[in-house]
Amino acid sequence: MNQVIRVGVIGTGFMGRAHAHAWRNVGHFFDLPARPVLSVLCGRTLTAPALGFAAHENDWRRLVERDDVDLVDICSPGATHAPIALAALRAGKHVLCEKPLANTVEEAEAMTEAAASAPGLAMVGFNFRRLPAVAAARELVAGLGRVRHVRGSYLNDMLADPATPMAWRLRAGEAGSGALGDLASHAVDLAQHLAGDLITGVSGLTETFVAERPSEEGRPEKVTVDDATAFVARFGGGALGVFEASRYAPGRAEGLRVEIDAEGGSVIFDLGSPNDLLVLGGDGVRGDGFRKVRVSDPAWWYGHAIGYEHTFVHQARDLVEAICAGRRPEPSFAGGLRVQRVLEAVASSAGQWREIPR
Amino acid sequence: MNQVIRVGVIGTGFMGRAHAHAWRNVGHFFDLPARPVLSVLCGRTLTAPALGFAAHENDWRRLVERDDVDLVDICSPGATHAPIALAALRAGKHVLCEKPLANTVEEAEAMTEAAASAPGLAMVGFNFRRLPAVAAARELVAGLGRVRHVRGSYLNDMLADPATPMAWRLRAGEAGSGALGDLASHAVDLAQHLAGDLITGVSGLTETFVAERPSEEGRPEKVTVDDATAFVARFGGGALGVFEASRYAPGRAEGLRVEIDAEGGSVIFDLGSPNDLLVLGGDGVRGDGFRKVRVSDPAWWYGHAIGYEHTFVHQARDLVEAICAGRRPEPSFAGGLRVQRVLEAVASSAGQWREIPR
Amino acid sequence: MNQVIRVGVIGTGFMGRAHAHAWRNVGHFFDLPARPVLSVLCGRTLTAPALGFAAHENDWRRLVERDDVDLVDICSPGATHAPIALAALRAGKHVLCEKPLANTVEEAEAMTEAAASAPGLAMVGFNFRRLPAVAAARELVAGLGRVRHVRGSYLNDMLADPATPMAWRLRAGEAGSGALGDLASHAVDLAQHLAGDLITGVSGLTETFVAERPSEEGRPEKVTVDDATAFVARFGGGALGVFEASRYAPGRAEGLRVEIDAEGGSVIFDLGSPNDLLVLGGDGVRGDGFRKVRVSDPAWWYGHAIGYEHTFVHQARDLVEAICAGRRPEPSFAGGLRVQRVLEAVASSAGQWREIPR
Amino acid sequence: MNQVIRVGVIGTGFMGRAHAHAWRNVGHFFDLPARPVLSVLCGRTLTAPALGFAAHENDWRRLVERDDVDLVDICSPGATHAPIALAALRAGKHVLCEKPLANTVEEAEAMTEAAASAPGLAMVGFNFRRLPAVAAARELVAGLGRVRHVRGSYLNDMLADPATPMAWRLRAGEAGSGALGDLASHAVDLAQHLAGDLITGVSGLTETFVAERPSEEGRPEKVTVDDATAFVARFGGGALGVFEASRYAPGRAEGLRVEIDAEGGSVIFDLGSPNDLLVLGGDGVRGDGFRKVRVSDPAWWYGHAIGYEHTFVHQARDLVEAICAGRRPEPSFAGGLRVQRVLEAVASSAGQWREIPR
Repeated sequence: MNQVIRVGVIGTGFMGRAHAHAWRNVGHFFDLPARPVLSVLCGRTLTAPALGFAAHENDWRRLVERDDVDLVDICSPGATHAPIALAALRAGKHVLCEKPLANTVEEAEAMTEAAASAPGLAMVGFNFRRLPAVAAARELVAGLGRVRHVRGSYLNDMLADPATPMAWRLRAGEAGSGALGDLASHAVDLAQHLAGDLITGVSGLTETFVAERPSEEGRPEKVTVDDATAFVARFGGGALGVFEASRYAPGRAEGLRVEIDAEGGSVIFDLGSPNDLLVLGGDGVRGDGFRKVRVSDPAWWYGHAIGYEHTFVHQARDLVEAICAGRRPEPSFAGGLRVQRVLEAVASSAGQWREIPR
Repeated sequence: MNQVIRVGVIGTGFMGRAHAHAWRNVGHFFDLPARPVLSVLCGRTLTAPALGFAAHENDWRRLVERDDVDLVDICSPGATHAPIALAALRAGKHVLCEKPLANTVEEAEAMTEAAASAPGLAMVGFNFRRLPAVAAARELVAGLGRVRHVRGSYLNDMLADPATPMAWRLRAGEAGSGALGDLASHAVDLAQHLAGDLITGVSGLTETFVAERPSEEGRPEKVTVDDATAFVARFGGGALGVFEASRYAPGRAEGLRVEIDAEGGSVIFDLGSPNDLLVLGGDGVRGDGFRKVRVSDPAWWYGHAIGYEHTFVHQARDLVEAICAGRRPEPSFAGGLRVQRVLEAVASSAGQWREIPR
Repeated sequence: MNQVIRVGVIGTGFMGRAHAHAWRNVGHFFDLPARPVLSVLCGRTLTAPALGFAAHENDWRRLVERDDVDLVDICSPGATHAPIALAALRAGKHVLCEKPLANTVEEAEAMTEAAASAPGLAMVGFNFRRLPAVAAARELVAGLGRVRHVRGSYLNDMLADPATPMAWRLRAGEAGSGALGDLASHAVDLAQHLAGDLITGVSGLTETFVAERPSEEGRPEKVTVDDATAFVARFGGGALGVFEASRYAPGRAEGLRVEIDAEGGSVIFDLGSPNDLLVLGGDGVRGDGFRKVRVSDPAWWYGHAIGYEHTFVHQARDLVEAICAGRRPEPSFAGGLRVQRVLEAVASSAGQWREIPR
Repeated sequence: MNQVIRVGVIGTGFMGRAHAHAWRNVGHFFDLPARPVLSVLCGRTLTAPALGFAAHENDWRRLVERDDVDLVDICSPGATHAPIALAALRAGKHVLCEKPLANTVEEAEAMTEAAASAPGLAMVGFNFRRLPAVAAARELVAGLGRVRHVRGSYLNDMLADPATPMAWRLRAGEAGSGALGDLASHAVDLAQHLAGDLITGVSGLTETFVAERPSEEGRPEKVTVDDATAFVARFGGGALGVFEASRYAPGRAEGLRVEIDAEGGSVIFDLGSPNDLLVLGGDGVRGDGFRKVRVSDPAWWYGHAIGYEHTFVHQARDLVEAICAGRRPEPSFAGGLRVQRVLEAVASSAGQWREIPR
């Protein structure tokens, strides 16, 4: 393992820290074909040594041009994804871009096009695919016959308190959308991934429950993104889908849950218990319900729990392996675009509606 | 308690047995203003004594005309609801009609109109409202502020096996609809009841996964009802609803579940655990999750479980008390009609749809 | 079914009501070889018609001598069990006696001896054995090889509040013991029943946490029974047992739970969810956990829950069938005595103890 | 933060890897008063760079004498704990010793004595105390009044398969004891920690279910440690304890669970869900059950799960802070000795037993 991959991370918020942790540790968990090196960090809130990097840049434009960066890892807000990714791909770098891929379908299309012809490889960061439990779920579903029902939801309580102030995530200019892009994107990607199928049509609605919130300066400011969304979907293979995402669900912290009902059984993944699956086998005994299956991480210990940070560690491994093999990593930018199109269709589907006569 | 209410039950299937059990026992659980008497049974599969009745009729037309019947309890398939209820109301009887109220909105309208002007009182049998846990849930929700999200589902595995043969429940002529009328009707009624609000619009779809099944004679026969439905809904007070009903959900026996998220907390009822609620209080502590609350039946014991049959026992009590008080019982036929209109809107909303470009 | 069994119930507390309900309904649930008739009720708090009986007696001595009583059903406090059962057996009646069989091992021995030679048949009322889920659990355990671990507990919160006043259940003169006889007796019986094995030795302790409570007249009165007990046990087949019973367990309503770990798997019954089992099959896959199995009542509906009262309905059926077949019902008085001996050994084992040096 | 603490880790098994991970990351999660440096690794199976260390030793005797080691972290089998810890303390090093402290009470006494007079500070690695959920549980219990019941168990399925071969953990010479030292030690430490009280007496038993297993060479070899243990305990404050540990519990992976019932409520920690607690508050409402409380790690993210490895990260932080403050870390060797005495009393209590007469 003489080869190294020099990583430049952009963003020092929570996501930047999580990615840095992954790059710092992935080589101690896995036998990798190349050694990741924490090369350059770009961000205002933390220094390079705090996260283990060798150098620091204040401007992402400089980072993407540096010779000591092979891979640009984009952990900054949605509005910056497209310009950074396009510049990095132009500069010949590999790119890992946090989800959602972009703030608009147009941006996502441009990024997908650029990735298709660039020398560098590009991946979008739907990190939950990487959990050993999710990998096991996908395999189980594949053995259960035709999928009939898909349920996907991502509920949290971020805005349950109406006094919670504005933040970049509540401004369309920066975040693109609200629960749709931040939460439903994960549910849609994970549902398609587990079902092994794509959504072909949707109908639903979005809602902003609290129209104004106090700005950072304490003045009332209009919320310009959705607080919640609910939609039904049809999958290519005939399955019915039900989806929901909300920041107004009291008591739900990171309530991502996907359920797949197929002819031969059923599998449930719930992020509240990320090391377990609920599985219903195809043994045909009526009354026989779900069993909780502990899925251990083969790279670590049997039985004990791994945490959220391991989604990023595994993501880093998968990307390193794809780069070394010259293989296009999954989910690609095209996959990220596909999710974006589903979300846009939901946003524009409201109004297609049957009123109930009183 | 000298007054008696002489009950005539029509139908000796599972539902007839459950109603008869309720009439036989309600007076031993509750202090009632009138004593129910098991007067006449109409049905082919069981004798009057087997269920504790004094007399038997083969034809419901005769039962509804008998002098020794004050209350007609309709437990026969959906196609018979309207004619029996109309005849019974015309004959001056009180009527308890199993859900769904009718097979079509037109029938339900006629029944509602008849009930409005008849001397007898009429109730539709959404029995799950009667569980002590559901009554407690309704009170809790009322104290939690504006409702934001409503989730309702009723999943079972009745048809999970494609070899399951045809039955009256799979023929539109007899059953009206499939999962919609049989299952979603309960979810819609319970959701509206718990939210204390009505659905004002819907968008969704229905699906028949297996188009043909073997008839009782073993010949292929076309399934003429829906196997499953999924829809989103908007409530009058602004809440978003997500609903699902299916007979293709492996491992779910009687999976009726309603979740209400409100500003100040959340309440979940799940028929799999009919004596418990999951409740999230409005104490504002983040991370503080659902607690399981055992709701005991005040008419029976503390702590121990009651079973499905008690939904009917409580229903019988509520109806007897309403009749003795001359009060219109709830849910009325108008309430049943309202549910019917929601289901019809779902059935006709398919096609209002956004395709996802490849 | 011309034969009848005329039942006399002694006791009109909660247990008398539950038994009366069972006798009233058992014939409508099951095809019985004889029809139970609610003949005579003895008790101070309810009239015969309130529970559906034909006649009433104030003194149990008169009830056990009546010609119109074939079966004496003892639902009165523990101190009365031995005299009533002995008199009833002498009078040639069949006897159903609530648990625990008696207040002392001496009484239980006398009852067992009397039952062995009497013409009537005698059964002790360990009603939880009758649940369909428990019956299914017993069968499952029998197929899992050698039993290694048994866990039994019965926790409730009856005395969690130190202001709860005295009652007959807290006086040794009437109740014999506290959590031991009232709660641990159920756990021991169910554990032995499910394990298919008997306890051969114990070591443990009992405790009275609150020594005095206000009497019904408000004066301090000494509590003369145990509040809680904990003990380890060894079974004949080599399994280790752990048992606990307490009236000081906040949040537990009727927390009876038995877990059996065997070579080939594990089965858990929990009265909080009396229609379900948790089952771990013997498929040898590590990580594969418990599945929830809904055990439906074959006499009633598929999927829906039955309640606590059905334990008594099934008990009534089993006793009627045993009587008609001239077969000794299970659990017999000898089985009740065996449980009593375990409890007495626990009570006398305290002091056999290793102190930990500071 | 100019100060550094140079760490020498002994052992490159699973535990050595977990400790190394903690030392490598703790400084990126927490603001520490001193920076841990991965100085020397001793062990046969991994090289120093693989775990991020600067140097390597084959013999622990050399490691404990090195000038570039301030802290000796003992992750080797139980039989080596005493000699290494004594040598390290003599050499003036700080010591972190994996649990159980030693293989015998005598060894543990010698270690405790040495630690009391040595210049270095010594801690025993009961890592589960470090979980944020456990810290929150301890605080909650402290506010609930007198503790009445303590339940502690640690169940796994390591030996559920009788063909599982011998290993050092099954040989008394190396491991000291079996389920007692490996598993029950955690349950006892955690139970005492959460209850805020110490065990003062015990009675119980141990068992070796499978007497012989194939050696690494395939020859039958006698198992010389216990497979399982069960005991009851009394705490200083009057609480009753029930404990169990087993390697024969099918379907349990790392089933450590502690329950504390106190006057004012109840708290349950279960390692299967290490980010959550089950909590019953002291609000006095009967029927009001346990709520699941997500305890987030303040050093990381809100809502998301942390994994097993964070127990070691937090342990490293606590030890660094204690060393920099010159404060004796908890749990000290004296605390480890106390646990050892409880386990020895359990091992010697068998035989104090009441037989049940047939």
